[in-house]
Amino acid sequence: MTPAAPEGLEREMLALIESLYPICRSITGDGVRETLRLVGQKLPLEQHEVPSGTPVLDWTVPDEWNVRDAWIKNRAGERVVDFRRSNLHLVSYSEPVSPRWMPRAELVAHLHSLPEHPDWIPYRTSYYKRSWGFCVSEKQLESLTEAEYEVCIDSTLAPGHLTYGEHFLPGERPEEILISAHVCHPSLCDDNLSGIAVSSFVARALAARARRRWSYRFLFIPGTIGSLTWLARNREGVPRIRGGLTLVCLGDERGLTYKRSFGGGAEIDRAAQLALATSGRPFEAIDFFPYGYDERQFNSPGFRIPVGSLMRGRHGRFAEYHTSADDLGFVRGPQLVDAYASVLAILDVLEGNARFRSLSPYGEPQLGRRGIYRAMGGESDPEALQLAMLWVLSLADGEHTLVDAAERSGLGFAVVRSAATLLERHDLIQECD
Amino acid sequence: MTPAAPEGLEREMLALIESLYPICRSITGDGVRETLRLVGQKLPLEQHEVPSGTPVLDWTVPDEWNVRDAWIKNRAGERVVDFRRSNLHLVSYSEPVSPRWMPRAELVAHLHSLPEHPDWIPYRTSYYKRSWGFCVSEKQLESLTEAEYEVCIDSTLAPGHLTYGEHFLPGERPEEILISAHVCHPSLCDDNLSGIAVSSFVARALAARARRRWSYRFLFIPGTIGSLTWLARNREGVPRIRGGLTLVCLGDERGLTYKRSFGGGAEIDRAAQLALATSGRPFEAIDFFPYGYDERQFNSPGFRIPVGSLMRGRHGRFAEYHTSADDLGFVRGPQLVDAYASVLAILDVLEGNARFRSLSPYGEPQLGRRGIYRAMGGESDPEALQLAMLWVLSLADGEHTLVDAAERSGLGFAVVRSAATLLERHDLIQECD
Amino acid sequence: MTPAAPEGLEREMLALIESLYPICRSITGDGVRETLRLVGQKLPLEQHEVPSGTPVLDWTVPDEWNVRDAWIKNRAGERVVDFRRSNLHLVSYSEPVSPRWMPRAELVAHLHSLPEHPDWIPYRTSYYKRSWGFCVSEKQLESLTEAEYEVCIDSTLAPGHLTYGEHFLPGERPEEILISAHVCHPSLCDDNLSGIAVSSFVARALAARARRRWSYRFLFIPGTIGSLTWLARNREGVPRIRGGLTLVCLGDERGLTYKRSFGGGAEIDRAAQLALATSGRPFEAIDFFPYGYDERQFNSPGFRIPVGSLMRGRHGRFAEYHTSADDLGFVRGPQLVDAYASVLAILDVLEGNARFRSLSPYGEPQLGRRGIYRAMGGESDPEALQLAMLWVLSLADGEHTLVDAAERSGLGFAVVRSAATLLERHDLIQECD
Repeated sequence: MTPAAPEGLEREMLALIESLYPICRSITGDGVRETLRLVGQKLPLEQHEVPSGTPVLDWTVPDEWNVRDAWIKNRAGERVVDFRRSNLHLVSYSEPVSPRWMPRAELVAHLHSLPEHPDWIPYRTSYYKRSWGFCVSEKQLESLTEAEYEVCIDSTLAPGHLTYGEHFLPGERPEEILISAHVCHPSLCDDNLSGIAVSSFVARALAARARRRWSYRFLFIPGTIGSLTWLARNREGVPRIRGGLTLVCLGDERGLTYKRSFGGGAEIDRAAQLALATSGRPFEAIDFFPYGYDERQFNSPGFRIPVGSLMRGRHGRFAEYHTSADDLGFVRGPQLVDAYASVLAILDVLEGNARFRSLSPYGEPQLGRRGIYRAMGGESDPEALQLAMLWVLSLADGEHTLVDAAERSGLGFAVVRSAATLLERHDLIQECD
Repeated sequence: MTPAAPEGLEREMLALIESLYPICRSITGDGVRETLRLVGQKLPLEQHEVPSGTPVLDWTVPDEWNVRDAWIKNRAGERVVDFRRSNLHLVSYSEPVSPRWMPRAELVAHLHSLPEHPDWIPYRTSYYKRSWGFCVSEKQLESLTEAEYEVCIDSTLAPGHLTYGEHFLPGERPEEILISAHVCHPSLCDDNLSGIAVSSFVARALAARARRRWSYRFLFIPGTIGSLTWLARNREGVPRIRGGLTLVCLGDERGLTYKRSFGGGAEIDRAAQLALATSGRPFEAIDFFPYGYDERQFNSPGFRIPVGSLMRGRHGRFAEYHTSADDLGFVRGPQLVDAYASVLAILDVLEGNARFRSLSPYGEPQLGRRGIYRAMGGESDPEALQLAMLWVLSLADGEHTLVDAAERSGLGFAVVRSAATLLERHDLIQECD
Repeated sequence: MTPAAPEGLEREMLALIESLYPICRSITGDGVRETLRLVGQKLPLEQHEVPSGTPVLDWTVPDEWNVRDAWIKNRAGERVVDFRRSNLHLVSYSEPVSPRWMPRAELVAHLHSLPEHPDWIPYRTSYYKRSWGFCVSEKQLESLTEAEYEVCIDSTLAPGHLTYGEHFLPGERPEEILISAHVCHPSLCDDNLSGIAVSSFVARALAARARRRWSYRFLFIPGTIGSLTWLARNREGVPRIRGGLTLVCLGDERGLTYKRSFGGGAEIDRAAQLALATSGRPFEAIDFFPYGYDERQFNSPGFRIPVGSLMRGRHGRFAEYHTSADDLGFVRGPQLVDAYASVLAILDVLEGNARFRSLSPYGEPQLGRRGIYRAMGGESDPEALQLAMLWVLSLADGEHTLVDAAERSGLGFAVVRSAATLLERHDLIQECD
């Protein structure tokens, strides 16, 4: 029942990811701007620039960070660690270090590696504590045997702006569905170029629709500080949000996992589980926990926006997480397309869900007379649409929804929705509210 | 704990089914009247005749259908398909066809068979779309190789009446339990001569009782249109109905299945599950679904009467369903008797269930002093009645019922009810409401 | 996470049990007084004496029973059954029998044995029906082959008092936790010298604490009549009791079982399950049933005090139950210490549980700025305390408790409590009351 993906989508998604991969993103800086520029070629983005020092809820927008270059040179003047080869080499938000020689021991205290994966470079950040450091593979670390090294970090960490992008799609109703992807990770693909790509193309698909019941808001924001900033600037808009999703790590080879919102039984939670169950592919639904991605902020006690999270690899739970192994080879086109279709399937449940009241609630209405039911009786196997009509009528008491009907019947949401449309057209049920 | 069945019951039930088997029943007509006449020999039935054209809820009582004869003859003038040999051969509600020759191809378009069961005749109806047809075995169909056949349906389909029977047993309280069986199927035994037989003898057993707490209403009605008609004519009585059962397919060799009412947690649902669990025989309880038998109508959104369904073979789920294989050999005496006892066991839970308030709620009352508890202490295995007294006292808070006590204790309803009676007699508990 | 037991505790507990073992206890009499005197050496006990004939709820305090001697002699004048060898030989509350000869058959009607355990003496009582009897091993019974025996029971059963002990520990709040152990069984160890010992040393440990949030009330009472008496004399105090535990059969080799209070979802129930789950040792939680020990009375409909029961061997479910095999060899020191630690762990959950409201509920507060969160980002394995802080903040909505946070997070209560304390200290959350 997942909507068919348009021709060439896989190629387009992978191309977007490839173009975004080399950029050195962080929670602020030109990497985010360049990322939004490229995403903006797929869908119009409103770009926001929030000055450093702006209070946002309990936090403050930090100084802006940009890097021109960073390296560690040996005696021979060779770059043994080189930011130009991988932006992961530099701890994000490293303060500037003018070129200077330092003893090996002093340098090593600033190095991060992964002994259990000797070829991989870890990804580390130090956003809120001024510091500097390099991330290296364990093999690189072992090869640093000279007594002294020259170190340089040509970065700026100074008042500037935090940048984020927003795409708003108005619908028939002012209530909004929020889709959020973080744009603060450097050369990591699954986390979260995959989420950015899926979000972008889902937005484009929705924009192309003639009709949307709900309004949709897509956020491309730096993790944590970005969602906090957006929430701080849009507090009056929060009550309009019916629910939403954060999209993360959607390109790897794992099956889908849906992480429920705080309450666990919100419409978005039921819609996601229904849509994924109907797909026929295995998936897991897990309870909310207050770490992970920006669903943390949306679900915080003061907001409690029911935002779930759709992912494949789980936050901190796969070996490649936050390492250089999360590279272009780690994400797969078919997985991206499947995630894209799954998000649309979830949103289609939200679009189609409604509460109905039967206009013929006393006994069943005579469907046959209206030409929408088989005329010949006695057979044992009525088709799904006919069963779905009976389910919708049975639950058309103004209390239950089509999601209830889909859950109870096991027929899948699409056929239940079709049945409701047919019954509505024949004036047998009426939408409530 | 199921009440013992009276001597000769099995023989009586089978004899009733045998007498009903040959009758050509449909949703209207003399077959229904003859059926009610035979059932009426077991218990007095109020017979209702509702004119064709009467609006009943969203439906209209159809014309009355009767058949004198129907056949297909070959060139030799032999009846190759003969209504007199099985009334299943004629599609129910077939309009009259004056004897006429028709090419084989034209005839075949009006024939129904079951390729997967070449010896069986299917059962088909066309109540609300004027049409005609014959049901034949696949082997008969294959043997029809001549170029032309003569066809005759000597039926009448004309304004008349819809007929149904009702048996009301007054109890101490005006609230009613509804038991319904459909009487519209021709020569099919399990579906639903078994239900008719069980219902009839349960009614007779209840009628013989000196005391009934609840009133009971037994309906012998054509499926769908019959329950709709009854509901249309008795809307003011619906609020008096506490719950009920449809009785269907109770004679085959399968274990019992209880299909819950729409809400799933009504007293009838808990009573049924409790009674069946106590029987010691395997059974299954399944959720409500809006197809099956007349529980569809009783549970519809406007009424929501908590009516469950007791069955063995499930609607549309056994091979013999709606075929000539559902014959006299398909139903078994002991299964009918067991179903009869099970229905009475369910009704006994409803009869005996109550909410109590302890008259000695602070700590346990001293049962020993009243001579209703073992005098010797220290043993590890008090008997069930003593445990049941403790359970009833523990739950005698005016909120819980004896069904709660039976469910929580696992002791079975009968001993819990006995304990309550004993405690009530000693002024230790008082019935609420 | 169970608190470490103090040095020498195991030895002290076993020594208390050994000193209590020989005493002939019953529901009244000097055996109870001597028991309270020995327990009183561990913690100050308020001793209550309630006159025989005092009405207590539905019951009456019985006459006091004391025994000097009891025996059965053969022709040779040898004591073939001798109360001095085991107080179990005499049915508790046996009325006096002046020395007299009786035919074997008459005697045997007063004898109780356990054919399935030929070496064990059963424990029997006849508190409320005047009677007399001896308990003997099956082998003893078989050896009684002479035609006549001389029987003597030198007991008194006369107006006196019912005795119980109480230890009250005031806390910051007047609301109380009730811990109750029965003191009415003669030479049986697990049932309930183990409970008496665990209760005594838990009381001593709590008394030694500088701070207790709740007040604690320890009861050392005869089973059933003792709790009824206490309840009758303290009805005005019942609303102050938040919940409690009966402590029984805690020394045998089985794992712990927690029997829930009547409602099943009380704070004590959740605390017990949480504490036991965190211990890492297997345990079982079972639903309330209205037999067993004094939790019956506390949970009765008029009181519904949520009192659970902690035990190893279950009431009536182990072979040694109420037999001479429940002797000093049947209880084990490490099991007693583990039970002691488990009770304290449960009480620590009650002590530490609270409902909080976040003072920074909109998005997460910035923990790093306050120095209570790791500065370096990107790692996949934050430690438990950091996760616990996020959980506590996420649930700090004034509705959820720390028990909720511990249950949802699976982190264990202790770390959740530590996190809350840390957050409270940084003015990030505020306790709701």
